[in-house]
Amino acid sequence: MITTGNDNKPAIRFDLIAQEGEARAGVLTTRRGEIETPVFMPVGTAGTVKGIRFEELESEELDPKIILGNTYHLWLRPGIETIRECGGLHKFIGWQRALLTDSGGFQVWSLGALRKIDEEGTHFRSHVDGSAQFLSPEISMEVQAALGSEIVMAFDECAPGNATHEETLKSMSLTSRWAKRSRTRFDQLQGEGADTGRAVTTNCLSGAQAIFGIVQGASHLSLRRESLAQTVEIGFDGYALGGLSVGEEKPVMFEVIREIAPVMPADRPRYLMGIGTPEDLIDAVAAGIDMFDCVLPTRNGRTGQAFTSSGKLNIKNAQWAKDSRPIDELCNCSVCRRHSRAYLRHLYLSGEMLASILLTHHNLAFFLDTMRAVRQSIRSGVFHKFRREFTERLNANGE
Amino acid sequence: MITTGNDNKPAIRFDLIAQEGEARAGVLTTRRGEIETPVFMPVGTAGTVKGIRFEELESEELDPKIILGNTYHLWLRPGIETIRECGGLHKFIGWQRALLTDSGGFQVWSLGALRKIDEEGTHFRSHVDGSAQFLSPEISMEVQAALGSEIVMAFDECAPGNATHEETLKSMSLTSRWAKRSRTRFDQLQGEGADTGRAVTTNCLSGAQAIFGIVQGASHLSLRRESLAQTVEIGFDGYALGGLSVGEEKPVMFEVIREIAPVMPADRPRYLMGIGTPEDLIDAVAAGIDMFDCVLPTRNGRTGQAFTSSGKLNIKNAQWAKDSRPIDELCNCSVCRRHSRAYLRHLYLSGEMLASILLTHHNLAFFLDTMRAVRQSIRSGVFHKFRREFTERLNANGE
Repeated sequence: MITTGNDNKPAIRFDLIAQEGEARAGVLTTRRGEIETPVFMPVGTAGTVKGIRFEELESEELDPKIILGNTYHLWLRPGIETIRECGGLHKFIGWQRALLTDSGGFQVWSLGALRKIDEEGTHFRSHVDGSAQFLSPEISMEVQAALGSEIVMAFDECAPGNATHEETLKSMSLTSRWAKRSRTRFDQLQGEGADTGRAVTTNCLSGAQAIFGIVQGASHLSLRRESLAQTVEIGFDGYALGGLSVGEEKPVMFEVIREIAPVMPADRPRYLMGIGTPEDLIDAVAAGIDMFDCVLPTRNGRTGQAFTSSGKLNIKNAQWAKDSRPIDELCNCSVCRRHSRAYLRHLYLSGEMLASILLTHHNLAFFLDTMRAVRQSIRSGVFHKFRREFTERLNANGE
Repeated sequence: MITTGNDNKPAIRFDLIAQEGEARAGVLTTRRGEIETPVFMPVGTAGTVKGIRFEELESEELDPKIILGNTYHLWLRPGIETIRECGGLHKFIGWQRALLTDSGGFQVWSLGALRKIDEEGTHFRSHVDGSAQFLSPEISMEVQAALGSEIVMAFDECAPGNATHEETLKSMSLTSRWAKRSRTRFDQLQGEGADTGRAVTTNCLSGAQAIFGIVQGASHLSLRRESLAQTVEIGFDGYALGGLSVGEEKPVMFEVIREIAPVMPADRPRYLMGIGTPEDLIDAVAAGIDMFDCVLPTRNGRTGQAFTSSGKLNIKNAQWAKDSRPIDELCNCSVCRRHSRAYLRHLYLSGEMLASILLTHHNLAFFLDTMRAVRQSIRSGVFHKFRREFTERLNANGE
């Protein structure tokens, strides 16, 4: 399989190992090591996966091989000059494993009234200091080169979940033109050696960054197919489904995933952006998705919600006040081995940072463990059985 | 040495190993293991040393053998019924090493206008919900028995640092009467088996709680001596210097420490409450103090201040924006091995929890490492040389 690279070497390799229905298990090889798929990527917005130390992430208990960084946040603060002077994002934050950076497109889009989009790019006001800013495909590529991530995302425009056909077509067409500009500037930057993460040699890989294209089209399947065709036409190392979980109903979202994922290029990784709950992940794997990122385990951990094998658990509930059981009796993470619901509830109600730290840890352990189990089940040909049992357990006792 | 206990066994043992001038190195044995002295106890106010997991505390890098819990905070929230039902403080928080609990006296005193003191005890309003509360020597002993700490502190009254002789005498006399009532109720509770932390057998120890008396007297040396005599007359397993660093000038504080510490019972641990900076600790060790607790490493970590071998460092300063050096180039802690000032500054300015987590870790490592070095230097007979060099380095480059 040929991907972005030089000297006829690809920037990444993607090898499928097993398939069951549409569900796939594979290995994505980057210049920073191998990543078994399907994979969940914890979100490290501003150069930290909130509430957890890298040493904890690297422990066997969690052990994600790749995390996500947000171009928008890092670009605004501490700024690209700082990160470049500190040797790129890996060196700056002290993380030697793989990084995927988003393009900033979605973050800027989320600003709503604070941004204005034209053909050239997006004008917006910084959430940090209110200053006027401008982000374009070219700038996003320059920033991502300075960050030096293993996987760069094309700069896209996102239509709301309930956008009309006409609005969506307009937005999707802009995304396609931006994808082309992203690809062009990305290739220039690779040629110029702007990538701070460049590796001199990495087995059969070029050592360059890889770039993924993003399929848009809201809930309009015909536009999704058109967007996919246009994105594949440009040619990327992997393909993402973007613009989902942005206001549409969940059945609508899954219709898009189930219709589009299976027809995305089979020999490239398929990445579902920003989604979702453990059951969402498993359903999307069943449709053929290989990569995920989501803030749910970290964000919900900070607001007192734990994900467990029997559903969500709100640690604030009075019923846990004297409950000596762990959050999840089937979980073997260090938090569940050591701490009770009563203690975690006390920490949360007392406003103690440790509540966020421990709930974040458990939630990440639950997501990453679930994905390990998903991979194993596909490799063993028992994914559909696993999926059924997982879902039954989840619904047995949830709040 | 005989201390509180039963079956003629003491609750704690204290063995001196080396002495250099007034500085002493020893071993304090509790029912939860041996503690080398001089020792620094991290403060775990509400059942958590803020911002750090117990697994981190237990790692070789930090490794405190004892931490402090606050009776006042835990009594108000989650409340003693909860902690008792969860099997005592050790089980509730998941910490199996030794605990010292303060009496709540100082916390209640700190409430200022919100409290009213009479012979019986202290009336005050809870900082949690504003409810009217009452704390007395007897109640403090009952709460500390329910917590099940290894070392209980007598319930005391604190005079402000600038209190007159008359005010101080009145306050100190009340502390003495409260100390007697504390001792009486403590002994009853031990007999009643109220101590949740009771150990069935611990080598040569009784398995019961130990209790320390507190010397008050503000900056009046004659009253300090009188308070000491009255406290020793009642008889405790250890003796603490309380009511320091409460508004008096530092030279005044050190006059008290240097005059009183050496005449406290030599065969019992001497505990300086709530103090201080690394240089304070070393100066107090030179006066004969064995035990310390202080919120400085944790609290200052959360507000962006790092303690280093060359003085304090404010991580917010613009001069660190692109500085790839660790906080302390002489420190070998996991934070200094991995992260730069530039990254820590970025985390702090971004309001990321990881800033507090990492600075807290480094600060605790610095305090605990310093105390390890202090102990080693006393055992090797080079404490005064160590002290001189430490102080010179500290003043060479501080902010």
